[in-house]
Amino acid sequence: TRIGWIGTGVMGLSMCGHVMRKGYATSVHNRTRHKAAPLVESGAGWADSPRQVAEQSDVVFTMLGFPQDVREVYFGRNGLLQAARPGIILVDMTTTEPSLAREIHQAAGEQGAFAVDAPVSGGDVGARNAALSIMLGGDREVVDAIRPILEAMGKNLVYLGPAGSGQHAKVCNQIVITGTMIGVCESLMYGFKAGLDLPTMLSSIKDGAAKCWTLDNLAPRILRRDFAPGFFVDHFIKDMGIALQEAARMGLSLPGLALTHQLYLAVKAQGHGKCGTQALILALEQMCGTVIQGKD
Amino acid sequence: TRIGWIGTGVMGLSMCGHVMRKGYATSVHNRTRHKAAPLVESGAGWADSPRQVAEQSDVVFTMLGFPQDVREVYFGRNGLLQAARPGIILVDMTTTEPSLAREIHQAAGEQGAFAVDAPVSGGDVGARNAALSIMLGGDREVVDAIRPILEAMGKNLVYLGPAGSGQHAKVCNQIVITGTMIGVCESLMYGFKAGLDLPTMLSSIKDGAAKCWTLDNLAPRILRRDFAPGFFVDHFIKDMGIALQEAARMGLSLPGLALTHQLYLAVKAQGHGKCGTQALILALEQMCGTVIQGKD
Amino acid sequence: TRIGWIGTGVMGLSMCGHVMRKGYATSVHNRTRHKAAPLVESGAGWADSPRQVAEQSDVVFTMLGFPQDVREVYFGRNGLLQAARPGIILVDMTTTEPSLAREIHQAAGEQGAFAVDAPVSGGDVGARNAALSIMLGGDREVVDAIRPILEAMGKNLVYLGPAGSGQHAKVCNQIVITGTMIGVCESLMYGFKAGLDLPTMLSSIKDGAAKCWTLDNLAPRILRRDFAPGFFVDHFIKDMGIALQEAARMGLSLPGLALTHQLYLAVKAQGHGKCGTQALILALEQMCGTVIQGKD
Amino acid sequence: TRIGWIGTGVMGLSMCGHVMRKGYATSVHNRTRHKAAPLVESGAGWADSPRQVAEQSDVVFTMLGFPQDVREVYFGRNGLLQAARPGIILVDMTTTEPSLAREIHQAAGEQGAFAVDAPVSGGDVGARNAALSIMLGGDREVVDAIRPILEAMGKNLVYLGPAGSGQHAKVCNQIVITGTMIGVCESLMYGFKAGLDLPTMLSSIKDGAAKCWTLDNLAPRILRRDFAPGFFVDHFIKDMGIALQEAARMGLSLPGLALTHQLYLAVKAQGHGKCGTQALILALEQMCGTVIQGKD
Repeated sequence: TRIGWIGTGVMGLSMCGHVMRKGYATSVHNRTRHKAAPLVESGAGWADSPRQVAEQSDVVFTMLGFPQDVREVYFGRNGLLQAARPGIILVDMTTTEPSLAREIHQAAGEQGAFAVDAPVSGGDVGARNAALSIMLGGDREVVDAIRPILEAMGKNLVYLGPAGSGQHAKVCNQIVITGTMIGVCESLMYGFKAGLDLPTMLSSIKDGAAKCWTLDNLAPRILRRDFAPGFFVDHFIKDMGIALQEAARMGLSLPGLALTHQLYLAVKAQGHGKCGTQALILALEQMCGTVIQGKD
Repeated sequence: TRIGWIGTGVMGLSMCGHVMRKGYATSVHNRTRHKAAPLVESGAGWADSPRQVAEQSDVVFTMLGFPQDVREVYFGRNGLLQAARPGIILVDMTTTEPSLAREIHQAAGEQGAFAVDAPVSGGDVGARNAALSIMLGGDREVVDAIRPILEAMGKNLVYLGPAGSGQHAKVCNQIVITGTMIGVCESLMYGFKAGLDLPTMLSSIKDGAAKCWTLDNLAPRILRRDFAPGFFVDHFIKDMGIALQEAARMGLSLPGLALTHQLYLAVKAQGHGKCGTQALILALEQMCGTVIQGKD
Repeated sequence: TRIGWIGTGVMGLSMCGHVMRKGYATSVHNRTRHKAAPLVESGAGWADSPRQVAEQSDVVFTMLGFPQDVREVYFGRNGLLQAARPGIILVDMTTTEPSLAREIHQAAGEQGAFAVDAPVSGGDVGARNAALSIMLGGDREVVDAIRPILEAMGKNLVYLGPAGSGQHAKVCNQIVITGTMIGVCESLMYGFKAGLDLPTMLSSIKDGAAKCWTLDNLAPRILRRDFAPGFFVDHFIKDMGIALQEAARMGLSLPGLALTHQLYLAVKAQGHGKCGTQALILALEQMCGTVIQGKD
Repeated sequence: TRIGWIGTGVMGLSMCGHVMRKGYATSVHNRTRHKAAPLVESGAGWADSPRQVAEQSDVVFTMLGFPQDVREVYFGRNGLLQAARPGIILVDMTTTEPSLAREIHQAAGEQGAFAVDAPVSGGDVGARNAALSIMLGGDREVVDAIRPILEAMGKNLVYLGPAGSGQHAKVCNQIVITGTMIGVCESLMYGFKAGLDLPTMLSSIKDGAAKCWTLDNLAPRILRRDFAPGFFVDHFIKDMGIALQEAARMGLSLPGLALTHQLYLAVKAQGHGKCGTQALILALEQMCGTVIQGKD
């Protein structure tokens, strides 16, 4: 099985590396060529366009940024679908719109090709450690066919249903996180104003019903004023926008998500779009005219 | 050390039992006498009033429902403070207002008595298993003096600071939970409408960044339509009300908490105040005109 | 000047009628032909497509439902732009996306044609009475050239700036209304639960700082349980969606608008999308488990 | 009929002056004596305490700041109820809690005295011009008995029902205003970011369905950066707090009010509690990292 890989950012680079270490012959392409250099040095072939990747591969993975990037790579003039022959499998691991996943699946199907949506969670750490959760949508037998390759990248591979279902599950994941983020950040604001020592406060609540990944992993970064991105505010806003658009289309009212989305838009408006999602605290600090402190 | 215990609801009963099993002589009082029966049968003495409890004890614990109950038990005509002699230690484990904790501490101090605020988290399961987290406020040496007794009930005993600090930490705990609750419930609404099998969806997200106690423990109950209370909606609304009132007083804007509070008021208005906090989903289902399903 | 008119719903029918009564020769087209019958009977010519309308007209007005309808009428296979010759003026009176207005303006310009965005406010009553407010975007001299025709339909014609500016002003209008709607509806809920006679309550507040069109015009309809549409919930949701999308794009956080949008999505989810905007009360009644009453 | 007047701030001073000009003999008291000087110079007698006011009057009016002030003036050691003999009428024109109005009514009744709640709307301008709206609660015949005096101060006198009903109507008034404020402020933010000339935008929407007192009166002040108080942010926050507390007690979920309350808490946290309510824009500007401009 010849592998194609498009999108070699922080996550994609790690993920493609894991696949290559399993011994698969791999072609890579990236908008900014030099970012793919480590893979090429490790033996991957360079392809000049998504189209050329498709021509040289049996299974193509894409790991991109925004839905419009995905659209361009699949449907563009030198896109994958220009060269998608019967039997090829196209796997989009970007977090993108469920409707776009269905559109790709349909377009691929009309050419006899297959498409799988396979967004991930676990962040850069999960990508590096091959410990991602992978949420899979598409035809079950196609998903089963690529499992051995996916297992090079992730641990928790779950098949969710027809095309777009992987993306829908990823939306579910992000919605939970909007809740844990607002809860943790408002809790820190309260604790600080109440005069508590924040590390002590955290130690008193972190093992009970308030326990969550965000509390364990991001609250300490906030206390260190470490806003380096595990996951970009800009990308989180994109994901929430997808969630709200799909929800509106499906006839759902999700007021909590809508509010958190607006607060993140404030974070971005204040210039922190390239920070990590823990930067939500910055918008609350602005609102409250208070900067929290709490050394470990 | 003679122990007094006031408040023998589901939690108080377990907690007092653990203390008695350590061998402490114990007097108990409860508004509804028969609920204290199991403790009396195990050897506790019955006291006719909080005042009488104080007369017979060196350390008194209270575990009540609402702030007005606490006020009555401490400041009422036959209340604890009527008989609080120098050296007695009064420990309120109810979740109540930080300002009330400070008021009790002050009033006790004027009589040479000591007061500690010691709200807990961990729910009925934690109480039963002596695995509660206990958040402690008051004078540090007083707190240290009662640690051996507290260790009969809980595992994670954290001293937060002067009177009221334990209550403030409990507020921090509850604020985080408002976030995880709204996140999990909105995620389930989305997943259901998107056509996902909800248990499968949960299995795909529960080990990543969305991981939280609510997802692990309450989402499955929601899928089983099990709304039995681990923690009452009515009590949660009380806690959120305390949080918002204190936050307003301290000059904080906490829009996420305020929104979730209103949604819980809807849950209560719709008749579910005696359900567990997972009943938040019922208000969202009403809004969306959709009842979710998803057996395990 | 030969006039073309596309879109003969409730509003379009009145508006086109006013123009014809000024003596302009007019061609009409509508997706559902029979809705245009009254105009044809009054002397308008029927055109089989937008393209044909363009071929027969000097100034074309469009008054449609959703942005995708506008897109089809302008850019579709038999759309206006297929036959837009130099000098023709295309005036879109639909409430639609500012970016779509700019896109039409650009496409028209490339053919030497002109485009104006001219959304209106005032509802069916304003359309019938030729008393609409018209918010105008595009080239100033083009707007000036069509003023005499616009004056047949409206009273308050305001030029806002380049293409899309009329649409932006309409968004501003809708945002204010989201506020007055939520304020009025929550006020009615409160007054009813507080035991006030609602018409009496309204008479006591309607001339002070709470004065607003919604209070004067829609509160009485709510008290009569009259949910007939002056303006559809479905269209209002569309407008709020446009507003939120543009706001996100421009880097704005508008939490009030986002919340009201979600509440209207609940109104729609509960089956009232074809009601008038005053149906917001229905979602609040659901949340509060209370139906308000208050005959005049 | 001898009049007593307590509370001579900006509003109370004008209102008491109107009553005196009708020829009523008047005793006045104010916490800060010198603020009552203009009335004393016009012939009012000075009283050293609320108690003394009651001793010298047949009808006493109170126009104070916060509920705790009202409580002190009525129930304090030298309060009105210490000297409230049978037949005296106590009229509280402060905006305060409906439950406090009922409490005063009950306490007065036990002494054979009468109490009326009579909050007003119309602001300092309405007070100066004797054009206030007055919302009346209490016993109907008592309200009727004091109408001639009230007519010296206001134009729209509406009887709402038993004690507390006037306060409830005032809450309804304030809830509507929270909506118009958030709507108008978010609309201005949008319009500015969209590049519109704001005065032109306002002229295009102000006569349609967006029409409201806030748009007419406060939007121009915002454009002039005039944040002088017509009505204090601090007092508005108090009123919203009362509204939310009563609503929670009555089993109502009012998410719009709750959100606006939080945004006003941000305004206050940022140091603008003594500004007028139009300062809501300042919190939105902070969130959006944008200061709007728009000279008239």
